[in-house]
Amino acid sequence: MSTLGFIEYEDASPEVRAVYDDIMATRKTDKITNFWKALAHDPVRLKRMWEETRDIMSAGSLDPLVKELIYVAVSISNQCDYCIAAHTASARKKGMTDAMFHEMLATVGLANENNRLVAGLQVEIDEQFRAIG
Amino acid sequence: MSTLGFIEYEDASPEVRAVYDDIMATRKTDKITNFWKALAHDPVRLKRMWEETRDIMSAGSLDPLVKELIYVAVSISNQCDYCIAAHTASARKKGMTDAMFHEMLATVGLANENNRLVAGLQVEIDEQFRAIG
Amino acid sequence: MSTLGFIEYEDASPEVRAVYDDIMATRKTDKITNFWKALAHDPVRLKRMWEETRDIMSAGSLDPLVKELIYVAVSISNQCDYCIAAHTASARKKGMTDAMFHEMLATVGLANENNRLVAGLQVEIDEQFRAIG
Amino acid sequence: MSTLGFIEYEDASPEVRAVYDDIMATRKTDKITNFWKALAHDPVRLKRMWEETRDIMSAGSLDPLVKELIYVAVSISNQCDYCIAAHTASARKKGMTDAMFHEMLATVGLANENNRLVAGLQVEIDEQFRAIG
Amino acid sequence: MSTLGFIEYEDASPEVRAVYDDIMATRKTDKITNFWKALAHDPVRLKRMWEETRDIMSAGSLDPLVKELIYVAVSISNQCDYCIAAHTASARKKGMTDAMFHEMLATVGLANENNRLVAGLQVEIDEQFRAIG
Amino acid sequence: MSTLGFIEYEDASPEVRAVYDDIMATRKTDKITNFWKALAHDPVRLKRMWEETRDIMSAGSLDPLVKELIYVAVSISNQCDYCIAAHTASARKKGMTDAMFHEMLATVGLANENNRLVAGLQVEIDEQFRAIG
Repeated sequence: MSTLGFIEYEDASPEVRAVYDDIMATRKTDKITNFWKALAHDPVRLKRMWEETRDIMSAGSLDPLVKELIYVAVSISNQCDYCIAAHTASARKKGMTDAMFHEMLATVGLANENNRLVAGLQVEIDEQFRAIG
Repeated sequence: MSTLGFIEYEDASPEVRAVYDDIMATRKTDKITNFWKALAHDPVRLKRMWEETRDIMSAGSLDPLVKELIYVAVSISNQCDYCIAAHTASARKKGMTDAMFHEMLATVGLANENNRLVAGLQVEIDEQFRAIG
Repeated sequence: MSTLGFIEYEDASPEVRAVYDDIMATRKTDKITNFWKALAHDPVRLKRMWEETRDIMSAGSLDPLVKELIYVAVSISNQCDYCIAAHTASARKKGMTDAMFHEMLATVGLANENNRLVAGLQVEIDEQFRAIG
Repeated sequence: MSTLGFIEYEDASPEVRAVYDDIMATRKTDKITNFWKALAHDPVRLKRMWEETRDIMSAGSLDPLVKELIYVAVSISNQCDYCIAAHTASARKKGMTDAMFHEMLATVGLANENNRLVAGLQVEIDEQFRAIG
Repeated sequence: MSTLGFIEYEDASPEVRAVYDDIMATRKTDKITNFWKALAHDPVRLKRMWEETRDIMSAGSLDPLVKELIYVAVSISNQCDYCIAAHTASARKKGMTDAMFHEMLATVGLANENNRLVAGLQVEIDEQFRAIG
Repeated sequence: MSTLGFIEYEDASPEVRAVYDDIMATRKTDKITNFWKALAHDPVRLKRMWEETRDIMSAGSLDPLVKELIYVAVSISNQCDYCIAAHTASARKKGMTDAMFHEMLATVGLANENNRLVAGLQVEIDEQFRAIG
């Protein structure tokens, strides 16, 4: 099920439980998903990755739903089945409709196609798009 | 500059010009970017890809800016320098602030990292996330 | 189980058996893994890929365990589930501890994240890092 | 040179300078590389990514040189030119010889090849390699 | 089985049925594969993607079998298990022998290896290969 | 220009010269491309990779031009600029017309798009496509 197995709440150390508690409180759920239970064998990393994830995915200049869509889009490009499944569910929970899902998916498909047409045509970057620090 | 060179407006066939005209009208600009000028050697494909791009990236259930952010996110994951340059510029034109850019970028970085942690840990998909048709 | 099925030892031609024998002797095992049994339909390629793998992964300036870690790291980046499973097992056999596994995985996650931050920020290579032949 | 330009030390805020100071002290250098100067427009992210990088890449169960080799290997797989240039230089500074470089590179090439042979042959994971949590 | 489930022929709208009919007629089969049944929730996209696929994969300057081989090669590089399975079957239907399969696969493996050796060695493009528009 | 620089013919050891001679004879040219000159610092690897490349890309069940098209297709998917430039030139030398180039490129774009639509829709493999060994 996972390289090192899952650490369940009842078997977790206090520091792992503290992360699990924050995950459940933040996500308003009583379930810890497999990813965190697999990562918990490395408590320092668990804490860091959770805090990163929580902070980056929370409200800011971009709506949390927009960030979920971006997260799913990247996971699709990288063919990460687990991440697609988990974050498609999260996106729905945050309000993604079927129509939004279709448009996100179409955009991901288009970008992946155009990325390769550009590469295959060996297109030079337009003068006006060159980054100028 | 490109495998087959660029087709400039003045050298373009009527069918290629029709696409160029629609690009300029849609984007409210008088410039055709290098990608389209490189693709124009294949007029059927030029027309199709432009129509796809125009239709997918236009307003719908998702805001055009959100779609640009998704497009840039995918292009970053795929390391397509041309696409990153061109669509970062488009995203700005559609209202992306620096704060939005930072949050999009952080999300892309996070997703790429987590995608690999999941793979490396060989995490099984949670029962509740399994797609059920 | 595989596109063309597996070729078991008892059904193998002498040239395939010779490779199987070398695999088992080198790895001190009596099992041929599925990859080689699937590749054996192309005996020339089987022989070459095995010799490549054996020679590259053996002791040299880098310890065989270090090479396994690099191999797993690449396989994680490429999301090759089979390769992650097989080479994580090999790495353990060669001495990878859980702590080493966590550090390798953290490095892979970090590199994947930073690779994209660099791309998204369109960072130019520093003068002092430019390759000079 | 970079999407938002570089923030030089003399123009940096106190919080950015604190990170720059730690980078220079840790790496025993008086140069800040372009990546950090580009990321500095987002000071929170700069601080986090630097601390992540510093902590993950430092000594632990794996030698810092081994981590650099893993970092370069991933960057090569992802075709990140900047990261390859910067971390090949870091690896050398930490003791990578030409022979080590050749062996690392051979391993990366081999893994990338085998990852695809496995995928193309649709090889099922061997029973003994299945992760069992 | 799929994010939104499958739309079977008997439950399909007239516009979806029209696409299904064309797929079956073109491919001389009475089965619609899962991909199209999953995509059918977005009928506009279904129609477009089918027409694109049909037109691009049909006879032209390249033989349909050659296009299938290219399609499989790309899918292997991207580790798309579904696409590898479906298009390996299509390639066989169009005449791919085992020997052709082996040669295609060897080429894919080689290209993936060399792509990384080039990146790791930071090889500059030869003057004679530079695209000149 | 390259991590370790290029080894020119006049500075090469006898074993490297032997490979260079075979490259020039096989390709009917008097130029060694940068890739081989960069790889020549590792003579064992140079010899192996050249022999692999020569043998795999030569005539067999698939035409050498078809193999070049597959090679370019993979290199485009992987965004390897050097490989795209070099092998697009090789493909032309072997008879690739502009029409063939357009069709190859369209196929690569399509496959990259469909690979992601499949992933995003989480499509299960059809029963009839499952590999059965």
